[in-house]
Amino acid sequence: MSNYTIIEPQTGTAFTIKKGQILTVSDPLGRQVSDMVLFNLQDKREKISAGKSMDFEETILLTKGNYLWSNRSRKMMEIIEDTNGRNDFLLAPCSPETFQIMYGNHEEHPSCLNNLRANLAEYGIGLDDIPTAFNIFMNVQFGPDGKLSVLPPTTVAGDRIRFRAEQDLIVCLTACSAEDSNGGTFKPIHYQVSDR
Amino acid sequence: MSNYTIIEPQTGTAFTIKKGQILTVSDPLGRQVSDMVLFNLQDKREKISAGKSMDFEETILLTKGNYLWSNRSRKMMEIIEDTNGRNDFLLAPCSPETFQIMYGNHEEHPSCLNNLRANLAEYGIGLDDIPTAFNIFMNVQFGPDGKLSVLPPTTVAGDRIRFRAEQDLIVCLTACSAEDSNGGTFKPIHYQVSDR
Repeated sequence: MSNYTIIEPQTGTAFTIKKGQILTVSDPLGRQVSDMVLFNLQDKREKISAGKSMDFEETILLTKGNYLWSNRSRKMMEIIEDTNGRNDFLLAPCSPETFQIMYGNHEEHPSCLNNLRANLAEYGIGLDDIPTAFNIFMNVQFGPDGKLSVLPPTTVAGDRIRFRAEQDLIVCLTACSAEDSNGGTFKPIHYQVSDR
Repeated sequence: MSNYTIIEPQTGTAFTIKKGQILTVSDPLGRQVSDMVLFNLQDKREKISAGKSMDFEETILLTKGNYLWSNRSRKMMEIIEDTNGRNDFLLAPCSPETFQIMYGNHEEHPSCLNNLRANLAEYGIGLDDIPTAFNIFMNVQFGPDGKLSVLPPTTVAGDRIRFRAEQDLIVCLTACSAEDSNGGTFKPIHYQVSDR
């Protein structure tokens, strides 16, 4: 992928894209996760919805051919390519409370939620308005009993997912901060916005 | 269950309960679903979160012993009894768009989302602020490939689930309006708030 932008390990970024543009998110080294949230650029109260996306697409695992839907039951993006194939909407972005409550780690720890918050602040979007993210490349496993576990991503260097925007959008992306999501290694994420 | 309140078929209701009180939700005839959303009575921007609940409880299927969590990573309710055992957070409340987009039904159709909206309006909560509901008794099936389908509930007459409030809460409950969720029959839901 040429002309990409680097999201450094354990950070995030926010930017806008126009309807019809293509967003490519790539894992340059392999085994890394990126959380993504979306807002309608013209009305930020319309945002990506995990429940609506699983409902309309009738699947937990979303890949090429699936759409990401908003809380107003409108399409926000189509997934047009996905070389890895494991993405979902189940678990909330890792947060300070994730590390405190689930891992007993009360020291300062970077998190996707804080990175989403920091980068969405410039768009006037606050913490309470951040929805469950689309978990790109996250390897969440679930059994018939519903029990959830997180394994390292199956991505290899260069794996990518491409989305076509169905609206003008604010996009916020992270390079995930949680040890559990990426096998204990913190890595960058690359992305690119293009017209086709 | 004595001294219960009836939620008529394809309707909803909203009420408040205090921290420590017990909410019992019962399916009086069997094979009916109830959608439930929760808001912190003192600050309505704190609300039930599907992503946080699945994350902290590490399961898709929540039952006795599990907690329902807020978007601020705090416990809102504990499930203290569950005679049926099938409840989840996967699919969004049925809405006018559910019937239009998924079933091609463009006629007026009652929906859980409209019933949540109508009953939450008196608390100053608008449509965009309604989160994915906790789907009580909903029988959502998922395979290893993540594909989702909805079967009739396995509840029999009198099945119930009981919650202890961990905060003062606004509770909104429905008797589900979707044919797919309840095997094509529309039935009431009963509920009761008690001090123990």
